[in-house]
Amino acid sequence: MKVDHLKIQQKADILMDKSVVIFQPEGRRHEIEESETLLEVAREIGLDIQSVCGGKGTCGKCRVIVRAGIDRLSLISKLEKRLLTESEIANAFRLACQTTIHGQSTIVVEVPHQSRVGKQRLLLKGLDTPVALRPSVTRLVIHLRKPSLTDVKADVERLLEAIRDQTGGESKVSYETLRQIPNAIREGNWTVSVVLRADGELISVRPADQLPDLYGVAVDIGSTKVAAYLLDLITGEIAATAPMTNPQIPYGEDIISRILYIMRGEKNLGELQRVIVSGINQLIEECCEKARIQADDIYDMTAVGNTAMHHIFLGVNPTYLSLSPYPAVLQSSMNLKARELGIRANPGAYVHTLPNIAGFVGADAVADVLATGIYKSESTKMVIDIGTNTEIIVGKKDWLMACSCASGPALEGAQIKHGMRAGTGAIEHVWVDPETLELGYQTIDNGKPIGLCGSGIVDAVAQMLSTHLIMLDGRFNPNAKTERIRRNGNIFELVIAWRDETSTENDIVITQNDVREVQKAKAAIYAGTSILMKHINIKPQDIQKIFVAGAFGNYVDPQSGKIIGMFPDVSLQNIEFVGNTAGSGARMALLSTEIRMLADRIARQIEYLELGADPEFMKEFLNATYFPHREAERFPHVMKILTGK
Amino acid sequence: MKVDHLKIQQKADILMDKSVVIFQPEGRRHEIEESETLLEVAREIGLDIQSVCGGKGTCGKCRVIVRAGIDRLSLISKLEKRLLTESEIANAFRLACQTTIHGQSTIVVEVPHQSRVGKQRLLLKGLDTPVALRPSVTRLVIHLRKPSLTDVKADVERLLEAIRDQTGGESKVSYETLRQIPNAIREGNWTVSVVLRADGELISVRPADQLPDLYGVAVDIGSTKVAAYLLDLITGEIAATAPMTNPQIPYGEDIISRILYIMRGEKNLGELQRVIVSGINQLIEECCEKARIQADDIYDMTAVGNTAMHHIFLGVNPTYLSLSPYPAVLQSSMNLKARELGIRANPGAYVHTLPNIAGFVGADAVADVLATGIYKSESTKMVIDIGTNTEIIVGKKDWLMACSCASGPALEGAQIKHGMRAGTGAIEHVWVDPETLELGYQTIDNGKPIGLCGSGIVDAVAQMLSTHLIMLDGRFNPNAKTERIRRNGNIFELVIAWRDETSTENDIVITQNDVREVQKAKAAIYAGTSILMKHINIKPQDIQKIFVAGAFGNYVDPQSGKIIGMFPDVSLQNIEFVGNTAGSGARMALLSTEIRMLADRIARQIEYLELGADPEFMKEFLNATYFPHREAERFPHVMKILTGK
Repeated sequence: MKVDHLKIQQKADILMDKSVVIFQPEGRRHEIEESETLLEVAREIGLDIQSVCGGKGTCGKCRVIVRAGIDRLSLISKLEKRLLTESEIANAFRLACQTTIHGQSTIVVEVPHQSRVGKQRLLLKGLDTPVALRPSVTRLVIHLRKPSLTDVKADVERLLEAIRDQTGGESKVSYETLRQIPNAIREGNWTVSVVLRADGELISVRPADQLPDLYGVAVDIGSTKVAAYLLDLITGEIAATAPMTNPQIPYGEDIISRILYIMRGEKNLGELQRVIVSGINQLIEECCEKARIQADDIYDMTAVGNTAMHHIFLGVNPTYLSLSPYPAVLQSSMNLKARELGIRANPGAYVHTLPNIAGFVGADAVADVLATGIYKSESTKMVIDIGTNTEIIVGKKDWLMACSCASGPALEGAQIKHGMRAGTGAIEHVWVDPETLELGYQTIDNGKPIGLCGSGIVDAVAQMLSTHLIMLDGRFNPNAKTERIRRNGNIFELVIAWRDETSTENDIVITQNDVREVQKAKAAIYAGTSILMKHINIKPQDIQKIFVAGAFGNYVDPQSGKIIGMFPDVSLQNIEFVGNTAGSGARMALLSTEIRMLADRIARQIEYLELGADPEFMKEFLNATYFPHREAERFPHVMKILTGK
Repeated sequence: MKVDHLKIQQKADILMDKSVVIFQPEGRRHEIEESETLLEVAREIGLDIQSVCGGKGTCGKCRVIVRAGIDRLSLISKLEKRLLTESEIANAFRLACQTTIHGQSTIVVEVPHQSRVGKQRLLLKGLDTPVALRPSVTRLVIHLRKPSLTDVKADVERLLEAIRDQTGGESKVSYETLRQIPNAIREGNWTVSVVLRADGELISVRPADQLPDLYGVAVDIGSTKVAAYLLDLITGEIAATAPMTNPQIPYGEDIISRILYIMRGEKNLGELQRVIVSGINQLIEECCEKARIQADDIYDMTAVGNTAMHHIFLGVNPTYLSLSPYPAVLQSSMNLKARELGIRANPGAYVHTLPNIAGFVGADAVADVLATGIYKSESTKMVIDIGTNTEIIVGKKDWLMACSCASGPALEGAQIKHGMRAGTGAIEHVWVDPETLELGYQTIDNGKPIGLCGSGIVDAVAQMLSTHLIMLDGRFNPNAKTERIRRNGNIFELVIAWRDETSTENDIVITQNDVREVQKAKAAIYAGTSILMKHINIKPQDIQKIFVAGAFGNYVDPQSGKIIGMFPDVSLQNIEFVGNTAGSGARMALLSTEIRMLADRIARQIEYLELGADPEFMKEFLNATYFPHREAERFPHVMKILTGK
């Protein structure tokens, strides 16, 4: 029946002289007129397909299954032959980024669960650092003298004079406000309510009986997730929050892939900017619905993100961030009208972007410093904000130093054979019985396992290490006595979940290559901390506290992170997982112009260390790929756990 | 043949279920879908039809002749019956503002010459007051240090630092410029050319080999005409000029009609703003073509206009200007991005609107003061800027006082039976032989006479007065011995041109009512000068000079103006006709930020006198309706001419 219906549809479309793609299981239908890959078509209609490499045909994450019209598609490419198994090819699997449509036809394509970006567990929570409420906008009721034939001062000058009389301060009108004034003052019978920015700009004038609610939005734009916080600027309280996966992900999972995408076409920067702005507008809408307010009640916004996200959000070319010496385009904070960016808010509202520190240490790191308060600490502390790119800041009230390392997406489940984001069905914790070597796991929402997310991968590696299934150099132990370890071709792998337990109907494994990816990620992070400590000449024991920030850090088992040597070997009680401090810092800046000035000062004062310029970095990195480290004496506590001595 | 073609077209249109209007002689065709008057349709497609009353059916200027489809039109209205003659109605004349289309049909309508706004003689010339060149924008070539791994300052901060090193001044980037910087500095190999505003804002950054030309546009937005001047901001010279009739005219000839139009619908303000902005863009395009530059080379603009034109240009509601006590919305000067208004210029360009003085004394009067230099005069001088609304400013370097009077459109040829604008075929000069009472005239471009323009009307009245065809109270002399004077019903009229001389195939006359209109216009102007002089306690002989500004003033015979008592009775050599000084002032402000500050100071310091608040105004006005004045002793020189004593 279904096939018949499809055939009729196909014929109709051919008669109409066009090609149509239908994506299953949603059944979303899209007509195409020119040669496009299936991935491009999916992007156009906002259908989520994973693409770590940004469509270059190297990651193999965008597998789709062709259900109809396979003979109208481009032939299997060399890259597909390399990344798909023979059985997959036989079963009509294709890579969406490699496949184009020939001639007029209707193509039906299924996007399997594993190729989805999917709904993710997104961390909104972060430190709630108290801030004295000094928002950039205030509201006032102003009484004007009515004009007469002997007092014909103009409306605007009359209003500004009344504000001066009432506040003692000078103010000025913006262009939008100018246009509101004549009607507002008459509708309000010469009494109006105004919204005034701290710099004296009048951004709203209404009749007095329409006293505005004052809301603001703080946004944290991560490479992977975006979080919005709606704050009541009168009380300082959070009115609503909303998270989403970054809608730029279909254009490339990591920053470099997105920059490569931008380099490929003149319009691509604008496209990525539109995508993130429209995503933020969705979050704003969601927050407004939850709090039952209008977008028009939003008079201010702050935004943080890494430097690349910051640049793309502003429509600023981030290309040079990826080229040595990796300079940012803009370090300073910036105020611009929300409507210039297309952000849904009151027409007078501004967006304040917090300052960046360097090409790979962005406004999010400044927010981390604000939220953790290390800028005013009496003792030395460290912040490690783990993501695809990891920022490390160390210091105290007199000095701060920061660096950035490319820890890669492995800790977020990417570039891992069965890796996935932290969504339903992701294995998030793994344990191995040291006696029997039997293995247990726990999935998010207790869903049937689909793959491993970051915390599950780190757990798995740490457990394999402590039970000697892998060795200190990361190689699988060929003598391990468990049927779960096997060879797949030349590659060792450990079965975490057997196929009859999973929803993919395949075994979920962690491979030798996956362990290598974890080694690289944790080595990059540790080497960053180590080079920083060398430059300021301190030892791990001099660090009173390590704050681990970022979504990953909130779910990972601290002990597992410590065992694999991700952090300097400090006591567990000195490690604090603080969640999304970037969001916390953005909220603080939204509530206080003093915090904004403080952020500017921090960004100027913080010393940036370019790891690539340190001749010892590569050696440090290579040594740190060992578990916990090639120089075992740096990790006395961990070695004691691993060797029992 | 033509009719057959039309019938086929009609049938096709009826089959297509729509109505079509074709305007002749151009043959412009427009499909309509909802009930609209012919005037509204004409406006939509930008076809010029006169409409002094703004479509209220009271001026009768929008006569059209229906050539086909008359049975598909609304029935003749009461207003039409009053304004059209029986013979006109029999010949299918209609008022475009009163006529709607019923049902599906094709209507062919001819717009006769007399109903056209037409191509006008527009005055661009004005005083060329020299100004020291200090434009608001300058260009600089800036050399940057190339970043390295040990010097990773961001692009923007690097550029601002280089500018500070080179100029000693602080600068800031605008949002548009921010986005140009990363590519420009690399394309220019770390040498760029920048455009910097006097307030430190960087509005353009390009590779150094693309050194920008710096142009600016000064615009004078009159109710009737708009003039644009393209200036080279490096040399200060005029590169091109372009005039046009104000494209808002189809919405109402005078300010009040346009304000009434705005009050009639929510979207009408936006519509009038769009119309003027798009008109200015046409002028800019024309100037750019003449000077062979790009709109992108325009980095600055100044604009002047009366307060209503100023408000509409900015999209600010001018409604309250027409309601006592007539307050302006904005007095101060304003800077805003040209692109916020939709003006064609460089994306970083600003528009500077000069300050207004009051609801009916606008930025154009400030420009008059700048151009005539009365603000720095040692002796007392007066500026009379004649238009539908006449502004009068009197003073010297210590003080200035201004007022405004509603002189009406008669001096521009409107509300006069055979009045017309100063275009081809307009009678611009008239003389009467005092012996024979024979009459001669001169037309613009020596065209066949169509009607009388302002200077022709004033000439005719002055000549009738000196030859006693009319009496001092304005009534026609019933004893005048000339066949040119006759009664038309109850109304006396003087034939200026016989029908066989004219292109309208009708006699061109000046009627008793027309003389009354001139009396009202000149009385309003004289009463304004007189009340002003009373307030500052001076006599005509204390006025060292009267500058007569405005287009009208440039073509009128000074002696005629003086004889009818339009100006205080000063010696002719003390009257100077200065043309479009509003445009001159706009050009001065474009060339110098110091002039802008001066203009702000003048606008704040000038004292505004509301004539309506003076209890003697009405008496003064009525007395001034006499020729030259009921108190003849105020005009000793004129009385000598009229009476020979």
